[in-house]
Order: sequence, then C-alpha cells, then structure tokens
Amino acid sequence: MTKIAILGGSGYTALELIRILLRHPHAEIVAVTSRQEGTPLVAEMHPSLGGRIGLRMEPFDADKLVAKGVQCVFGCLPHGVSMEAIPPLIDRGLRVIDLSADYRLRDPNVYAQWYGESHHDLVNLTQAVYGLPEIYGDDIRTAQLVANPGCYPQTAILGLAPLVAGKHVDLTNIIVDSKSGVSGAGRTPKLNFHFPECNESVVAYNVGKHRHTPEIEQALSDIAGEPVEVIFTPQLVPMDRGIYSTIYAAPDRAFSESQLLDLYRAYYANAPFVRVVNHVPATKDTVHSNFLDITVRVVRSKILILAAEDNLVRGASGVAVQNFNRMYGYDEKTGLW
Amino acid sequence: MTKIAILGGSGYTALELIRILLRHPHAEIVAVTSRQEGTPLVAEMHPSLGGRIGLRMEPFDADKLVAKGVQCVFGCLPHGVSMEAIPPLIDRGLRVIDLSADYRLRDPNVYAQWYGESHHDLVNLTQAVYGLPEIYGDDIRTAQLVANPGCYPQTAILGLAPLVAGKHVDLTNIIVDSKSGVSGAGRTPKLNFHFPECNESVVAYNVGKHRHTPEIEQALSDIAGEPVEVIFTPQLVPMDRGIYSTIYAAPDRAFSESQLLDLYRAYYANAPFVRVVNHVPATKDTVHSNFLDITVRVVRSKILILAAEDNLVRGASGVAVQNFNRMYGYDEKTGLW
Amino acid sequence: MTKIAILGGSGYTALELIRILLRHPHAEIVAVTSRQEGTPLVAEMHPSLGGRIGLRMEPFDADKLVAKGVQCVFGCLPHGVSMEAIPPLIDRGLRVIDLSADYRLRDPNVYAQWYGESHHDLVNLTQAVYGLPEIYGDDIRTAQLVANPGCYPQTAILGLAPLVAGKHVDLTNIIVDSKSGVSGAGRTPKLNFHFPECNESVVAYNVGKHRHTPEIEQALSDIAGEPVEVIFTPQLVPMDRGIYSTIYAAPDRAFSESQLLDLYRAYYANAPFVRVVNHVPATKDTVHSNFLDITVRVVRSKILILAAEDNLVRGASGVAVQNFNRMYGYDEKTGLW
Amino acid sequence: MTKIAILGGSGYTALELIRILLRHPHAEIVAVTSRQEGTPLVAEMHPSLGGRIGLRMEPFDADKLVAKGVQCVFGCLPHGVSMEAIPPLIDRGLRVIDLSADYRLRDPNVYAQWYGESHHDLVNLTQAVYGLPEIYGDDIRTAQLVANPGCYPQTAILGLAPLVAGKHVDLTNIIVDSKSGVSGAGRTPKLNFHFPECNESVVAYNVGKHRHTPEIEQALSDIAGEPVEVIFTPQLVPMDRGIYSTIYAAPDRAFSESQLLDLYRAYYANAPFVRVVNHVPATKDTVHSNFLDITVRVVRSKILILAAEDNLVRGASGVAVQNFNRMYGYDEKTGLW
Repeated sequence: MTKIAILGGSGYTALELIRILLRHPHAEIVAVTSRQEGTPLVAEMHPSLGGRIGLRMEPFDADKLVAKGVQCVFGCLPHGVSMEAIPPLIDRGLRVIDLSADYRLRDPNVYAQWYGESHHDLVNLTQAVYGLPEIYGDDIRTAQLVANPGCYPQTAILGLAPLVAGKHVDLTNIIVDSKSGVSGAGRTPKLNFHFPECNESVVAYNVGKHRHTPEIEQALSDIAGEPVEVIFTPQLVPMDRGIYSTIYAAPDRAFSESQLLDLYRAYYANAPFVRVVNHVPATKDTVHSNFLDITVRVVRSKILILAAEDNLVRGASGVAVQNFNRMYGYDEKTGLW
Repeated sequence: MTKIAILGGSGYTALELIRILLRHPHAEIVAVTSRQEGTPLVAEMHPSLGGRIGLRMEPFDADKLVAKGVQCVFGCLPHGVSMEAIPPLIDRGLRVIDLSADYRLRDPNVYAQWYGESHHDLVNLTQAVYGLPEIYGDDIRTAQLVANPGCYPQTAILGLAPLVAGKHVDLTNIIVDSKSGVSGAGRTPKLNFHFPECNESVVAYNVGKHRHTPEIEQALSDIAGEPVEVIFTPQLVPMDRGIYSTIYAAPDRAFSESQLLDLYRAYYANAPFVRVVNHVPATKDTVHSNFLDITVRVVRSKILILAAEDNLVRGASGVAVQNFNRMYGYDEKTGLW
Repeated sequence: MTKIAILGGSGYTALELIRILLRHPHAEIVAVTSRQEGTPLVAEMHPSLGGRIGLRMEPFDADKLVAKGVQCVFGCLPHGVSMEAIPPLIDRGLRVIDLSADYRLRDPNVYAQWYGESHHDLVNLTQAVYGLPEIYGDDIRTAQLVANPGCYPQTAILGLAPLVAGKHVDLTNIIVDSKSGVSGAGRTPKLNFHFPECNESVVAYNVGKHRHTPEIEQALSDIAGEPVEVIFTPQLVPMDRGIYSTIYAAPDRAFSESQLLDLYRAYYANAPFVRVVNHVPATKDTVHSNFLDITVRVVRSKILILAAEDNLVRGASGVAVQNFNRMYGYDEKTGLW
Repeated sequence: MTKIAILGGSGYTALELIRILLRHPHAEIVAVTSRQEGTPLVAEMHPSLGGRIGLRMEPFDADKLVAKGVQCVFGCLPHGVSMEAIPPLIDRGLRVIDLSADYRLRDPNVYAQWYGESHHDLVNLTQAVYGLPEIYGDDIRTAQLVANPGCYPQTAILGLAPLVAGKHVDLTNIIVDSKSGVSGAGRTPKLNFHFPECNESVVAYNVGKHRHTPEIEQALSDIAGEPVEVIFTPQLVPMDRGIYSTIYAAPDRAFSESQLLDLYRAYYANAPFVRVVNHVPATKDTVHSNFLDITVRVVRSKILILAAEDNLVRGASGVAVQNFNRMYGYDEKTGLW
C-alpha cells in the first residue's frame, strides 16, 4: 500500500484522480490539499464522492505530508503554482507526479516563451521525466519527479509516434486539428465556458498559440531524433469530456491503410491502453477509461490519423495512475482496467 | 417609427430584444446602455449582431436618451439596479418596459421579503402595470411603466388562468414543477452554470424560495379574485433555452380532457401567442418564438397542465415587444410572427 | 467465482452490466447472447469494450449455457421476450436476474392491463422476488428469480419509503414528477430519440400511462401495508444518463426538515447506496455510480423529496449486480464501489 | 408576390424554409408535398408551425402545382428522388431551386462515381446553375434550375475563394477539417444519430469519401480556372446546428494576417451575408441566420481559415431564399435579415 497526497483537490483532475485511486488496491489517499479557505470535507466540494472519502481539504504543508507517511504526491495545481510547491517535496525525498505543465518542457527558455514567466525550479526541471508511459516508460519507473503529459499532446504524440519514429512522414508538415470537451478548461467559471455560451457551439481558440504545441514538438522530436514541427489547432465542442484529434501528415512514399495499421499495431504491441482499431474511433468509446483509440486512413496523398481519448482520465488522471503503477512496480493496468 | 433605448445591453435578454426589434417595422433602436466600462460596439459584445447594428454601448444618462428622441425604454437591468434607473425616465415622460423584477410585485413588503431589500421607488411601483398581455392587456395599452413578467410565471399563470378564473380547482393546492434551460440564469459566469457542472445534469434550486413564487400568486389571485397559493419548484436542465412547466391541480369536480381543452381554447380565443394543443408540448417547438404551448390532461383525480415556452423570447424579450405593440397600437404580432 | 451469462447483449443495460462485471472479482462472464444475426464480437457491438472482452455474441440456447457452467443469468431482453427465455433457465436450475418488466408485477391482470398482453409464465411469476435490495433484501438472498426494478420506480419507492412506511403522508395524494436522460429509452433508433428532436428540448411522455406506475404502487403498497396511489409524470431531458424525481406528498402533521432528514437517515442506516444528503442532489453526482441521492424539503403544507440516480447503473445494471451480490453472499458493494 | 411550392416537406430543410418564407414579404407558400402517406397538416408534422400555416401535405403532382399558380418550386427531396420530380416541373416552365445534390455536379460521371448511380436527367443537368450567390450570382438571376449548394461546401468554397481566385495557395494541398451539428444528417432516425450515441461524442465519418468533396473541388476549380484538390474530413459534434470548418492552405509567399483580412474584405465587399471578422468565429454567432463568418490566421508556414455557419439556414434553406431573391429581383437580404 502506497500512501498518497493530492495537491489542489478542488478541480476536475483531482476529482478524477480520487475516483480512480479509491478503487486502486495499492494506493491509500491520506491527504488532499486545497488553496481555498477553510478545511471543508473533500466530499463537500465533490458531492459525487459522498460516503466514499472522509478526508478534509487541508492547506499545503510539506512537513505534515511527511508526518502522515505520504510517499507519493500527485500535483493538481495550476502551472506556476506547481513549481513553488514541488521543490520542498522533492527535498524531503517524496516522489511526485505533477499534472501541471511546469516540468514538461525541458528547455526553460521554451517554457518562458510559451508560459510568459521564467521557470523557478531549474534544478528539478533537469531531472523531471515526461510521463508518457508508452514512450518514456523505462525512465518513469525510476523517476522521482514525473511531469504528467497534457491532454491534447497525448493524442498527437501517440497518434504520430509510429510514423515519426520511422521518419515516414515530412516532419515539418504536420497538422493536428483537435476538438475537446469543456472539462479540459478546468473548473473556474469564465464567460467562454458559461453553459449558454459554449453549448450548441464550436469554436477554435488559441489558434497557433496553444501551450501544448511545444510539448507535442518536444516529444515528437525525441522520437524522431530530429526537430518536428506541428500546426496545432484546439477547438471547443459542447460536451463534458473527450478529445478528438484529426492529424494530417505527408508520407514520403505510398502506404496502404493495412500497412499503416500493421505498423501501428506493431508499435503498440505492448501498450495495453492504446487500441489501434479498424473503425473510425469516437470519443464516446473512450470516456471514463484510460484507452486511447487510434486509426489510420489514407486520403489522396496524405495520411490521416484519428485519435480519441478521455481528457480527464487518459488525458490527465488515468495516465497519472498509469505512471504511478510503473513507478511503484504495480501492473500498469491496476486500478485502470 | 418609435425610437427606443435598451438599458443593460450586455445580457441575453437585451441581445434577444435587439434581434427582435431589428426586424420590427415600427421600432428604431437609437441607444443601448451598459454599466460595463468603455463604449464597445454592441456587435462586439454580441458578435451575432455583426453587420446589423452600428451602435456603441453608452453609459446610462436619462437626459441623453431624451436628447436622442427616445420614446420607449426597455430595461434589461438586474433587479435593484432597475428601480434606480427608471424613475428619472418616468419623470421625463418616457414610457418604460422593465424586464427586471422591480415593479412586478405590487406590495413592497412582499418585495422586501423575497428580494431581501426594501423597494426604493414606491411612487412608480403604484402605477406599474404587470405586463402579461393575455391577462392585463387593456391596462398595458395606456401604461407608462410596464413590469414585464418573469419567465417561469408566464407558464404558470397562463397555464392555470382558465381553471383559476372559473375557480374549478382548489386554489391552495397547486404544484408547479418547472424545468428551465440555462440561459434563464443570465450571462454572468458562476460555478453552477459552468458548462461541465450543469451539462448532463438535472438539479432543482431555490426549492420553496424562488422569487417567482409571489409573482405567480399575485397574478393568479388577481384572476381568481381570492388568494391563490402555489408550490413552485424550478429545475435546471442542460439546454440553452426553454421552460417546461408541469402543473398539478385538484379540480372541484370531474372534467374530461376535451372539456378542459374546450375551456382553454375559449379562454385564449383572442390570444394569438397561446397555442392550446392536443399533443403533449415540447419546448423545442416553442424556442425562438413568442408562442406558449399548453395542453391539459386528467390523471386520476388531478388535472395536469403542460406548458412550454422559450424563456428568452416569450419569457422575456418577445413578450416585452408584445407589450410594446400594445402600448403603441401596433398589431400585437408585429415583429414576433 | 460465479459464471455468468447475459441475455440480450446489444443494448445499453447489457453494456453497463458487462462493464461492471468485468471489474467484479467474483463474476466471470462466459456467454453473451443476442437475437441479432450472426455472432459478432461483443466488442464490435460495443467498441468501448475493445480489448477487454473476447467473447462473441451467440444465439440464446439454455442447454449451451448450462454446458458452459453458467450459474447466474442476467436478462437484458425486452419485456414479452424475457418471459419466453426465462422458464427454460429456471427449469434447469439456473438463477436469473431479469432486467425486463416481465416479473415485476405480481398480479398478471395488472401486467395485462399495462403491457397490453397476457402473461405467459404464471408459474415463475409467483416465485419472482422484486429486486429492490433496500426493501426486499432478505427475499433476494434466496430467490431463484429476481425481477430487477425499473429505473424510475427506484427513485419513487426509495424516495417515499420512509414516509409511507410510517404512514406519515396521504397515501393517495402523491405526485412523482420525473426527468430522465435519453439512454432510458433504449438503443433502438426512433424519431423521438433522434438527436435533433430531443436535444435542446424537454417533453413529457406517456402522461398518466407510463408502465412504471403500477410498479411504484405495488412496492409502496407493500411498504405501507395498504393501497398507495401515485400520479407519475415522466419527462425526457437532453442528457445521456440520470433520473431526477421531484416528489410531492401531503403529510398528516407538521414535520421539520431536520426531523425528516433524521427519519430518512435512520431508515437507510444500513443502505450503503442510498445517500441522504442535506444539499439538493444533482443527477451529475450520481452518474456512473450505484448511489441514489435523496433529500427532503418542506414547502408550505407539502413534503418535497428530491431523488437522483443514474438510470443505467442504479436504475438497472448496478442494482442488478447489487442483487447478484446478495444472492451469492458477496458484500453488497462488491464491484460497485 | 411569388407563389411557391415546397417538395419533400417533412424534413428539417423544409421546416426551415417554411419558417423563412412565412416571413418573406414577397413569397406565398401555396403547396407543400410529401411522399409520406396521407395528407396531414404541415403543422402536424412540424408542431412549431402551429397557428402559422394551414396547408396540408399533398402528394407531388406537377399539374396540380401549375393549377395552383405555383411559379417557383423549392425541392427538399433526397438525391436520386429529386431528379425524378424536377424534369416535369422544368417542362412546365416552373423555376426550381433544388436543395438536393442532384444538379450540383456538372459532370454526370463524377455524379455516378460519388453517388453510386447514374444521372437520369442529363438535359436539365446541363442548364442547372450552382446556387452559391457570392460566386455564381449573375447566372443565378436568370436560371430556371438552381442547384442549391451543400452545407459543408459553402464554408470551404467561400473560405478559400479569395485565396484560390488569386492562386495564392498550393491548389492541390488544401485540408478542410469540418465539424457539423447533427441536423445535417437529416430527420430519418438511425443508430448513429440516436441521442445517446452521438451526444457527448465527436466522431469523423465518410473519411476521404464524403460526397461534398467533388462539389467543393468543382467550385474551387471554377474559381481558380484550374484543378483544385482538397482533403475533406467531416466530423459530427453533439449540437443541433452549425458547421465549423478549419481550413489549412499553403501560401506561395509570406502573408500577414492583416493582408489576408484585407484581401478577404475586398473580395466580399458586396456580399452582405459573408462577415469577415477579426475574432475567431463561433458557430453560435451564426445559428438561425444566413451569415457565414470567416477569419484568417497565419500559423507557421500555413494559412488557416476558420469559417462558421448554420447548416440549415446558410447551409441550405437560407441560401435557397437568397437565390430566390436573386432569381426574382428582390433585394438579396429580403426575409433573411
């Protein structure tokens, strides 16, 4: 049994994480922190957890977490805040899975460019491992600090990895057109996410400027061994959960769809959560699961990859538990199947 | 052509009002005010109006409205704010259709009890006419100040009027179970109306305490000529628009459904916007229109009335224009058909 | 480990059942039948199950199920079809949990009246136990045939049981106004459930005629020990899952809300899946769980009960597994927590 | 006043057409035909029209339409059926606006290839004018037969026209990634459009095979004066109405966004229904209107065009009335503003 603390317990990723961990046979949540005032019951802020968890939210205090025997911390804090909270945990020898963006980009200049502030924790940034298990699985096992991947990037990176690894496509002519449910925007009310504004509507946002762009490029460049560039367009669709990425790449030679499906199946032969399917995936078939469904099509001169996932499970809290399982030697699927 | 100003132009009822009035052959919008900073184009705050209205939002100034030749003012301000803005307009001889709740309840004590603050404009409260055209149509014609009715109350009042007028039901044993789309909550972002909170959910709110209760009772008591009491339960459903009220009343004797439908059809014979239908109404058939669809059923010992409307058109801005038409002698349907 | 067959595997309740049972430590699904042509993979008809279940749909054959060692059968067939399939299973000594309506109504005349056809299996009807664990829990333990309860009735019965048991309310003046997500209508495409017809709309259906009415009354009459009558109004709201019942009852004397909450908490002290809450429940907090959330309010002279559940889990497949757990002596919460 | 008949009156485009034409000062609907049995009231099949139209559905009979004085026929029949019904109307000298796909593709071989059947009305195919007013506006004025454009193609064609007209982009490297509300699929119930299947989900369909592809290419090739090829990916999103197309094109040289916006504004200077906007458009701002909102962005080496419209108004019935206005010399905006 591994003792766990969750930082930033009031949002959707924390809620999803608690749900998953309550079913995990080897995890025990012993603390949930919140920056909000007071110490409300966790189940008060998340009524769906009523009767299932008796803990109260508490202010963040690294020493108290140690005193409670916490071994592993899941950070659900916003970026910027996360890199303030994590160093004292690392200093005290705790292992951390950070769901914020703070430790995902290895180059602090890239961080500063996209996030508009300089990075404050260069020491730990150096040792952080990008937590995409299908790509960085071995490093994750021994990492003290895992930078849990973003929701969109997983569809793009895993959607493209088999092609990029083999350099089968033009590495600087890739388009990722993504559609996301609204929970991806977090739990803070804003006009854009006010029900009557985003219901019954589709809208693109942060066109050409979304912060997941460098994250996608960093991982794909790792896989390719040379720079990869993508155009990434996120769009909001009126549903709670789910990300759908339609990816367009230009192959260096003619592929048949069955060749591509074979290539993908071989690449993901040992990845239980990546389902390479023949049919066109729908987000609905992945929600509330840690699966990422992918298929491949050839249209005219291009390869189309269609990838679907649940943004809160596979895109955040599920993959965090998948990382946790790897870090602690549990079967990768534990609590997620 | 009547010159019009709209106060509180940033919300949903103002948007709907502008849409309707832009099609109205006898109305010209000459000013739209907003309490927000600056003087943005109206079409900037409501991009759907792009290319259709060139006005800028302006701060409220009664004298400026007079100088612009404004004859009729539609108030889309929140309650409390409205009764500050309206007296100077009345003083200057303008006619006002107030979409807030400030002038709906004749008894200022009832206002204070339900709205938690005392009424500041007792003078005008006395002369205000409750703007439900099917019931108070003649008074509306000559009114200087019309208190436009609430969205829920119209379904309840018009749903019950034929029965209450004839005292065919127990006047103190009436249940109004209402379901509303989220635009009824206004345009200010709050956690309750954050998309991932209210999407895919039904929830009751203000149970036994909703401020539309005394409004329903006041009008039904007027119609009955004696006190009427209702239990009113509003519920939020995940859609943009529409109110559905399921009303339960205890008749004093056995009615057949066809008797009741006849009674309703006779009562609304001259009401073009009330459709007494044989089928069970759906909100979908009323949205974006000023129609209120009603049917009646008999189940066991009770009469069930099912009433559907669009909360923004019939429930607010459409009926406001219907009132405007009456006040200025235009055909009641002008701009609304 | 108990070997399980599921009949009628192509619909939503079967899918939900498979999901739950795949996580159940003591259940093994060994057969899934379908009346559709061919023997497609279960995961082909339910792509969300891809990688999780290798079985193919097979035609129903009682002997084959016995040959496979099936001990318990979950029936997800439509009413009418179910009472044809179940007798041979009972004859072969299998235990059956039937999710159809065929064995819920003890009186075959009532069945004939509401379902429009006579009952064909009077022998087994006599011995069937109504599978609402919080009320009929002991009988369920030893039953060979459990008639799993309807989705709406559970909110009504459990919402009213504490009041009806103590005869604290007028037993023939009860209103149950219910709102349901569309998955409750099943998976067969019909115009009423075509997305553009039911999205963004609320509509009542089967007013005064819904077949769950006699089911509610039968159970409440059992609890009261005398006849109970309800007016039940089902309404469709645009969401996938969830039932919300707003129940109105007339008490025989004045109750405070805290008295009522105490009464409910005492009544459900040993019911882990019934959460008596202080706040007004929302369906969102119950979906994908087996919880039924209830609160109570006093408004004017009436008691209001607000009850929320997931129609597919608590309303069908979850409570079926809860019944299964009772029948086989597993902890009631197994696989459902 | 022009007398109008509508063929195929039971679907969504017919409903929308009737709504628009009821407000049109120069159009009078004198007949609505349906292939369904019987002669129900139009308002029975479309309850939202209750009280607004007294006509009954009637079987199609060209001579009867002539006898009623019909001058212009709007065809809302499915493809294949349309080319059977239209020839007798043309023979009788009526003018026809056909909302089906039957007369959109000039080359009958292309029709046969994409629609899987040979074209039966080559005579009229030759004289049909593709009804996209912003491109083929002059030909439309004098046409007897207008092939009203598809919903998706309008976003793609108008989104690309200014670039393609100037040959500013690679004409064979264009990607159109489109998202549509479900009403675009018509009113016939199918599993894919069953509420619980498509709600809360995004899914691509007909990848590389959608029949709007050759329509997009034909118009863009006309505009360019040389062959244009696109990859077109349609996707279903859970909303009633709206199409959102995200278009990627490779420019032949560096453009700034303001240069592009200027180019677009100049191109559409006389097109009242095309709004070139600075902000990123949302479908919500176009629904229930005939506007098509477009903006342009430059991301890395590519031009992104974002185009939004209502699929039933601008995408079908609104543009049909726009065509009607041109054909009969009414102001283009009549009934649509």
